[in-house]
Amino acid sequence: MIRWMCFPKYRNIEAHMYDIIKIFETVYPEISSENHAKQSNEVLSIVTEGLKQLGYFVEQGKKKEQKIRVPVSYGENGKTVLSFEADAYNEELKTVIEVEAGRAVMNYQFLKDFYEACLMHNVDYLCIAVRQKYKRSCDYQKVCDFFDALYMTNRMQVPLKSIVIIGY
Amino acid sequence: MIRWMCFPKYRNIEAHMYDIIKIFETVYPEISSENHAKQSNEVLSIVTEGLKQLGYFVEQGKKKEQKIRVPVSYGENGKTVLSFEADAYNEELKTVIEVEAGRAVMNYQFLKDFYEACLMHNVDYLCIAVRQKYKRSCDYQKVCDFFDALYMTNRMQVPLKSIVIIGY
Repeated sequence: MIRWMCFPKYRNIEAHMYDIIKIFETVYPEISSENHAKQSNEVLSIVTEGLKQLGYFVEQGKKKEQKIRVPVSYGENGKTVLSFEADAYNEELKTVIEVEAGRAVMNYQFLKDFYEACLMHNVDYLCIAVRQKYKRSCDYQKVCDFFDALYMTNRMQVPLKSIVIIGY
Repeated sequence: MIRWMCFPKYRNIEAHMYDIIKIFETVYPEISSENHAKQSNEVLSIVTEGLKQLGYFVEQGKKKEQKIRVPVSYGENGKTVLSFEADAYNEELKTVIEVEAGRAVMNYQFLKDFYEACLMHNVDYLCIAVRQKYKRSCDYQKVCDFFDALYMTNRMQVPLKSIVIIGY
């Protein structure tokens, strides 16, 4: 079963974020970390068609022209000076999606995703999909615990309206 | 030569943060990433005596009772519910020090250090020491670039008065 959590917890999930979850639910038998050890790009390719139907631009590969870049800062004549990559992005919905596999927790990839989304111009929503299980670690739970602590302490003002963690 | 950068850049470095830099400068010939490939705990042990003289509690080893834990949240009867580990901590100066080696950038260890310090109760200052060089990567510069972007966009309100990055 797909597990998911929406932060901050006093905010109900937006319909367009729930649409993303539904796509992961549809393909769950193919990606479940209980039964598969897929790389993040394999999981991404399985959800790509569904995300495209929701209007997302999705990374097509590792070549420069296949990547999705979201602007962070602008320079003279409005040229983008700094941008970060995203796995999927919908400009109208102001939403970025990142799909991670084993590196998500062990190498703090989810922190990089969070940090970058916080800096991106015109991004209000972030969805991070992580494995439920990776080796002996419950990755999904660890990522949720982190955001629990972040919102509970209330020391850091997060510039995102909501963050959805999907555990596959 | 030790390199360092203080963020945000409109704020001059505090005297007590500069004291930390001076300790790294004193031992630079022993730890320089140009000439050594020391683990983070080896570097930490070399600066331990100096940090203790500045009033810091310093992690003595990987056993539970040798670690430094900084409270994040409290429960009934004021008991600490959540805490994070730090390499060195001075409660009076409200300062946490983290010493990283090769993992600092590649595995986003510095982002973990940053987020944890942001959540810790009674912490206003963070110092992260990283290698100048690691394999082909200029780790120190990459970490500085991250914080440059963070403060430039001004989207995220950081609950720390200042962050000092030391490149050794």
